[in-house]
Amino acid sequence: MPNVTFHFEDETAVTVSAPKGSNLLAVARGANVVIDTPCSGNGVCGKCRVKLLSGQVRSPKSQHLSDEEYAAGWRLSCVSTVEEDVEVQVPDIASAFKSRMKIADLNSGKEIAIFEEARSAVEAAGMPMENTMELLPLSMSQPTLDDTMPDNERLAWAIRRATGIEQVRIPYTVLKTLPVVLRDSGFQVTCVVRRTDKSVFVYDVLPGSEKAVIGGLAIDIGTTSVAALLINMQTGEIISRASTGNGQIRYGADVINRIIESSKEGGLKKLQDAIIQETINPLVAQMCRSAHFPARHIYRMCVAANTTMNHLFAGVPADHLRMEPYIPAFFKTNALFASDLGLNIHPDAHIIIAPNVGSYVGGDITAGTLVSMVWNQPDYSLFIDLGTNGELVFGNSDFMMCCACSAGPAFEGGDISCGMRATDGAIEACTIDGNTMEPAFRVVGGQKPVGLCGSGIIDVIAELFRTGIINAKGKFVREGRRVSFDQHGNGSYILAFREEAGGPKDVEITTADIDSFIRAKGAIFSAIRTMLASLDFDVSMIERVYVAGGIGSGINMKNAVRIGMFPDIDLDKFHYIGNSSLTGAYCMLLSRAAERKTYELSRNMTYLELSTINSYMDEFVACCFLPHTDASLFPSL
Amino acid sequence: MPNVTFHFEDETAVTVSAPKGSNLLAVARGANVVIDTPCSGNGVCGKCRVKLLSGQVRSPKSQHLSDEEYAAGWRLSCVSTVEEDVEVQVPDIASAFKSRMKIADLNSGKEIAIFEEARSAVEAAGMPMENTMELLPLSMSQPTLDDTMPDNERLAWAIRRATGIEQVRIPYTVLKTLPVVLRDSGFQVTCVVRRTDKSVFVYDVLPGSEKAVIGGLAIDIGTTSVAALLINMQTGEIISRASTGNGQIRYGADVINRIIESSKEGGLKKLQDAIIQETINPLVAQMCRSAHFPARHIYRMCVAANTTMNHLFAGVPADHLRMEPYIPAFFKTNALFASDLGLNIHPDAHIIIAPNVGSYVGGDITAGTLVSMVWNQPDYSLFIDLGTNGELVFGNSDFMMCCACSAGPAFEGGDISCGMRATDGAIEACTIDGNTMEPAFRVVGGQKPVGLCGSGIIDVIAELFRTGIINAKGKFVREGRRVSFDQHGNGSYILAFREEAGGPKDVEITTADIDSFIRAKGAIFSAIRTMLASLDFDVSMIERVYVAGGIGSGINMKNAVRIGMFPDIDLDKFHYIGNSSLTGAYCMLLSRAAERKTYELSRNMTYLELSTINSYMDEFVACCFLPHTDASLFPSL
Repeated sequence: MPNVTFHFEDETAVTVSAPKGSNLLAVARGANVVIDTPCSGNGVCGKCRVKLLSGQVRSPKSQHLSDEEYAAGWRLSCVSTVEEDVEVQVPDIASAFKSRMKIADLNSGKEIAIFEEARSAVEAAGMPMENTMELLPLSMSQPTLDDTMPDNERLAWAIRRATGIEQVRIPYTVLKTLPVVLRDSGFQVTCVVRRTDKSVFVYDVLPGSEKAVIGGLAIDIGTTSVAALLINMQTGEIISRASTGNGQIRYGADVINRIIESSKEGGLKKLQDAIIQETINPLVAQMCRSAHFPARHIYRMCVAANTTMNHLFAGVPADHLRMEPYIPAFFKTNALFASDLGLNIHPDAHIIIAPNVGSYVGGDITAGTLVSMVWNQPDYSLFIDLGTNGELVFGNSDFMMCCACSAGPAFEGGDISCGMRATDGAIEACTIDGNTMEPAFRVVGGQKPVGLCGSGIIDVIAELFRTGIINAKGKFVREGRRVSFDQHGNGSYILAFREEAGGPKDVEITTADIDSFIRAKGAIFSAIRTMLASLDFDVSMIERVYVAGGIGSGINMKNAVRIGMFPDIDLDKFHYIGNSSLTGAYCMLLSRAAERKTYELSRNMTYLELSTINSYMDEFVACCFLPHTDASLFPSL
Repeated sequence: MPNVTFHFEDETAVTVSAPKGSNLLAVARGANVVIDTPCSGNGVCGKCRVKLLSGQVRSPKSQHLSDEEYAAGWRLSCVSTVEEDVEVQVPDIASAFKSRMKIADLNSGKEIAIFEEARSAVEAAGMPMENTMELLPLSMSQPTLDDTMPDNERLAWAIRRATGIEQVRIPYTVLKTLPVVLRDSGFQVTCVVRRTDKSVFVYDVLPGSEKAVIGGLAIDIGTTSVAALLINMQTGEIISRASTGNGQIRYGADVINRIIESSKEGGLKKLQDAIIQETINPLVAQMCRSAHFPARHIYRMCVAANTTMNHLFAGVPADHLRMEPYIPAFFKTNALFASDLGLNIHPDAHIIIAPNVGSYVGGDITAGTLVSMVWNQPDYSLFIDLGTNGELVFGNSDFMMCCACSAGPAFEGGDISCGMRATDGAIEACTIDGNTMEPAFRVVGGQKPVGLCGSGIIDVIAELFRTGIINAKGKFVREGRRVSFDQHGNGSYILAFREEAGGPKDVEITTADIDSFIRAKGAIFSAIRTMLASLDFDVSMIERVYVAGGIGSGINMKNAVRIGMFPDIDLDKFHYIGNSSLTGAYCMLLSRAAERKTYELSRNMTYLELSTINSYMDEFVACCFLPHTDASLFPSL
């Protein structure tokens, strides 16, 4: 069998054998080599390019590759077939995913301020930071020939005496080591328990001298990224914060492709392994290592994720989420424990799931709604979570309505020729000189630009429009050094010529890219309009707009309004609230009252299915202009 | 490394490599080759003999081997060292353990009558055969765009409607397949549930058309043998019955040797694997295969076992059972589920454990006490369970006292030169002609005799004593063709000369064997006397004696009285009740009331530690005669 060697930018490499005729992308996936495949390997997006270093593959010349690129050895892995020993280079832009596991520096106050603020707000709203977990120091008398109570009864008896609660549950994990722990500690122990009104569940019995911290894990599982907090359940202190890419990315950029992949033979297990074994477990291990915290002392976990992500996380079939009538297996469930899912934390750790509202509004939104405080104010607020899908919640303390729209992967760089996630080399902000048409930009990591991330695209389009380089339809109408046209007359704007760029080609934005992005922003704005119209409201009634999501971190609100993505209201009303899904999971983990409130919020949210509203498509078409066909909606411009 | 090949009687063989200098018994254990080692490989019992077929081992000539035997290639494996390639024959008598897995023929009424009688008696005592398991047929409406309840809520809602019980618990095993099962069955299902007053736990959701039987497994884990019943939880019908040897046997014949072995590095896992992976799982698989029953439909299990066995079964450290103050980890526990223990039945199946009373009186006795009905009669009864340990319960409906004595392995053939378990080739009953001194015997399996099992030994000793061949001290006092004496004047009686026997040597009983057995029966009788004396009772107050245990199946009560093992009371008062541990487990499984009653019985039993009573040793010494030093105790003889 031929050998295939994948070389990475960090000069590491992986070699595997594969039968002749194997698909190169499939070989990469089998070897856990991450290649960017927003279209899930269907030959559509052109992102899965690799460069031949030695040997040949059988591979048609794709329209996504220029003659020069093809000659230089670039191939699309999804349409390439292995026929002989071959070595390929996996580009940085693709392997960026791998290197994105990042432990946050908690010494930077900014890193944790957002969580502390949310926690205070939730507390101020009447939800004390009390959870059911506690440490119970116990001193027992040692057994004698006259006091022959067995170990488990001795422990239960001491717990009853300490708590006044009759029902004590000692699970197998505790029983298994109880005789040894009790004797090693001279019957002086500290128990980690969950205490409710009716019962005490014993998670751990630690030797009396062990300084114990009850760990909790809050986690946001996004379609693209995963972010986590390791916390002290008793104080709320954030012990570690980290983020990484979602390992499922190699099975497609959006939830639909993931569901399709999961429906294949063995696919559900593969997708679950990708998120748990390849993403969360390594992330937790790294957090615990850096904080010198034993992973087994994580006794409770809260997951906030969209409905597809929490189904795949749980290993529960997700097919029906995408098939009419779009029914999830669960909105909420109490059935998940770490050992069931193969999570490397305490085996009996209970996994709480932020509740779903439907197939397309998930726990990430309900957790985010909790901390947005939309539900706690008499004024009307709009909460927008910008991910691969866009989700909206509108309402006040009396009612809430939510909806989801498919923005597509454009906000995260998918469907955009030079698009990329907000990693090193991404242009994240940009201005263009109206006279010279020369750009000035800020690049993540400060290096040479490789591509454009979502916030950068907003800026570029807003600036191209402001400077008259493109018109309201997104067509190029000025000429210059940085504008070029193809044989069909479709223009593109070059932000960085090859020699200025950090990658193998020009960093540019094309007419097709602008079209894609306009459809994405149109989906958001038309969703806002449609939802408000269904309530006989208009944008003037919005008192606050909370913008959340990883995509939005560098977002320029003024530019977002300029391109017609957000309504033209006072810019002071916009608030960027970061990763509200993670913040919500943190509060749910720390406060039983907040957890219950989130369940209540999810039940009280009215879901609006946009596709059932006739006017939505008309609205969407009207929104596919800069800023909108109806200029009166943007009076300030 | 030299190769060691073990040949078995069934002409199969196993070859393994072992470093030079390895102990042969250790090599055998490592290869899962079962060699009889009642003394756990300490060179004491002489049972672990194997015969060299090719090659040599370094092995001293043991006193347990005659010169002839040594010359013929017989070696004790526990004292043999591997130095070169070697092939050995493992004798039938040792590998008999392997072949003992046996599915009972339920068409023989006798096989199940004992369980039906016990069940009726338990029912008559006010415990209905009701358990919490039931089948719940459910018809749900299919979801639509207007009825978007998620799958788990839809199921819970239907269960609430059907049962009127609010709390419905749907565990992960059910959630994982729920979307598929509901849709495949058109939302017409049958649930297997456990219903209590407060909650319904869902074990399984089966397609509506599937004919479901709720299976239950009752199991008696003896130190030597394991017996099991597969039952229909709703009707009580016995679907299959089977027995096999306890795979732990290669780690020693008695509980003390097993505990010592389990305390070594990795030993606990090894002992747990031996009982679960090597014994119970194959047994259950064979029962299910023969009954065409899916093992996954076994939803509940009851284990009756001595305290050591249930600790090792659960994988809970047992060291402290043998160390003062002899404290078990548990008397009872609700913490065990099939998936924790690696049992190949339904993963959520709850394992109930018949409660222990102390380190030396376990769940086998409390389950046996339940069905003995000692506790339900105003008259006094004595319940004797004859195993490797002997346990006694005495009392009536007002009180019960229990004790345990170490009879040693003699009842099961250990410590006896030709002793063996009650398998094919064992002499199980015997008479001796007073004139000719010629024996007549019944052999298990009807073949040529290989050795003697417990009931056979009782008969042989009783007959030798009756015919005056041995005296009250167990010494040989007659001469004849079948009696021989060694150089020290110690006699032995040959039941079958080598040419009449099915094994490689004479089947005989020696003075040393008789001494061993007299000590064993003395332990039982002195325990009875001591316990009664502690209550100021005597044997005349015993209205019934219930004798239980695998050892007792062929027992001749008159001979047992004649040798002074049981008290000299009316023989009509003796009742053999078979494997009362298994019968008790069967009733506990089938009836929640019986389960609760067993817990109550265990709490109400007073445990008498014989070793703390000064007179016990004197009694014991006085009992080491045939039948007793005090002949007035046996007036009928």
